[in-house]
Amino acid sequence: MSEIVTLAHGAGGLETKALIDRVFAPALGNGYLNEREDAAIAPVGKYAVSTDGFIVSPLFFNGGDIGKLAVAGSCNDVAMRGAKPKFLTASFIMEEGLRFETLAAIVDSFAKELAKNEAALIAADTKVTPKHQAGGGLYIATTAFGEVRLEGLGAKNLQEGDLIIASGGCGDHGAAIFAAREGIELEGDLKSDCASLWGLVSKLIEAKLPIVCMRDATRGGLAAVANEWAIAANATLTFDESAIVVKNEVKGACELLGFEPYALANEGMMIVAVRGEAAARKTLNVMRDDELGQNAAIIGAAGGDYPGRAILRTAHKTSRFLETPSGELLPRIC
Amino acid sequence: MSEIVTLAHGAGGLETKALIDRVFAPALGNGYLNEREDAAIAPVGKYAVSTDGFIVSPLFFNGGDIGKLAVAGSCNDVAMRGAKPKFLTASFIMEEGLRFETLAAIVDSFAKELAKNEAALIAADTKVTPKHQAGGGLYIATTAFGEVRLEGLGAKNLQEGDLIIASGGCGDHGAAIFAAREGIELEGDLKSDCASLWGLVSKLIEAKLPIVCMRDATRGGLAAVANEWAIAANATLTFDESAIVVKNEVKGACELLGFEPYALANEGMMIVAVRGEAAARKTLNVMRDDELGQNAAIIGAAGGDYPGRAILRTAHKTSRFLETPSGELLPRIC
Repeated sequence: MSEIVTLAHGAGGLETKALIDRVFAPALGNGYLNEREDAAIAPVGKYAVSTDGFIVSPLFFNGGDIGKLAVAGSCNDVAMRGAKPKFLTASFIMEEGLRFETLAAIVDSFAKELAKNEAALIAADTKVTPKHQAGGGLYIATTAFGEVRLEGLGAKNLQEGDLIIASGGCGDHGAAIFAAREGIELEGDLKSDCASLWGLVSKLIEAKLPIVCMRDATRGGLAAVANEWAIAANATLTFDESAIVVKNEVKGACELLGFEPYALANEGMMIVAVRGEAAARKTLNVMRDDELGQNAAIIGAAGGDYPGRAILRTAHKTSRFLETPSGELLPRIC
Repeated sequence: MSEIVTLAHGAGGLETKALIDRVFAPALGNGYLNEREDAAIAPVGKYAVSTDGFIVSPLFFNGGDIGKLAVAGSCNDVAMRGAKPKFLTASFIMEEGLRFETLAAIVDSFAKELAKNEAALIAADTKVTPKHQAGGGLYIATTAFGEVRLEGLGAKNLQEGDLIIASGGCGDHGAAIFAAREGIELEGDLKSDCASLWGLVSKLIEAKLPIVCMRDATRGGLAAVANEWAIAANATLTFDESAIVVKNEVKGACELLGFEPYALANEGMMIVAVRGEAAARKTLNVMRDDELGQNAAIIGAAGGDYPGRAILRTAHKTSRFLETPSGELLPRIC
């Protein structure tokens, strides 16, 4: 059998079946998928639903790959809505010539991250494009369904005095992708933070903390989340630059890029708003007890004179707007 | 503002917001999407779920476009499981340089087809690749959720004597795509059958027909469905070639292609198995009362000496295997 994906694998015939039998079913098969019908019948209750397309380049990077990212990215989005990831659907758009070995490694990584979320893949589709028509490898689009465990979350509920906590440093994923793409060796261990956040979120929910809203800081980074929240609540969000964690290796990459780290993507870091100082301190403690929250910090609060805007208080005691990122930044970051 | 999609529209910042405000929100906005949170909270009960990636080339063809196809294709898959399409998620992977005018036309077509299904888009994502990395335009991956109205459908339930009905002619979509791509003028009106089948399915359900299983004949056409069913039920499926409708213009395209029409894709034609002759005749009547079932015909039955295989009885009274299609056929058909 061929060692690479060919257009015949996309034609819906014998080779498509062989592709599924060889790569997808062994890694991802279950009662839902093994029926091989047009749609799965899923016993779903009140669910959070999110979808994402993943076009990251390169396919493999320090800290993850497109398979891990496609699961973590979608599962994190439902986790941010207070929901436990339960079901996933996935569309794999592969390019003719993709090596089966490469595909299998990605599907394996996809399966492992699904298992971490204790979630099941209930529907999947494969397509094959001619060469060079899927960015040199493959794209994956996923839809995640999460069982709602905490209701009422939403940025529009932000009030003056609510404290804003980041679960980790800014920009790790963006900086790692940049380094992987350019083949740049940076000092230290520049690694994507790509990870599934549900474990951490579930601890916050169990601790019954007064969470107002949560958002993972992906494309556009902290800067995008800050502005989206400020607009949604028509509030001013004020951040203390000295409290925001940015790893040295990320700072180094930012100097090369000419970007600020607040606009660079994370893929395993969340921003949480909680009500009250005691709750914020407790949130910090819960986060720091988790592997993914070692660098958690209170980085800002709702309050200030510019409703709809985010303000950054710099280390030099000056203030400036933390603007919504614009322009190209890094294409194919996720 | 730019008239084309640029990489900046994919960066998660101001331009991404502008892209959504300009093209997607006007056509597709609703209470779920307008929250602009990471995931929608959907009130879902017992649902059929299906996902599909759409990479069709060209983006526009006689009878449809990628937007219409992305909705109809996914909604049809849940309809085939006896479920009314209710919710959809969509991931749009666009290429830098795509004209907004083109994108808006596709999104508009997407919205119209959603409305036909009385379904709501509850989650969406946009990504932008550099030029030439999404096949010259865009790809769309959709996940459809359908409310189950008829339970117990499944090809594994096929029994000897069950009759097989096609709701229309074979190969219309595949032939139309081929003609559009090659710029071939064929005699007659060669047009994709791209359409949403729920309306027709709901009539079959309302008529309380003893439906065993349904499948839309997409990639791999009737031949793929026939073989998948024969394998699932470990039954022989025998088809009468003289009963299978193939439009003259599709026959013409097949001669050019060197393909047989049974292996060419449809996107608005379904194969239904029902129990008993009276039920089969009633099914035909219900289908023929519907716009999409004008050419409905009983084309075969379960029964024969080759379990797991599909047999074609030719007009010359000989028999041959109707094989699972293999090889490349037409890439990017859907």
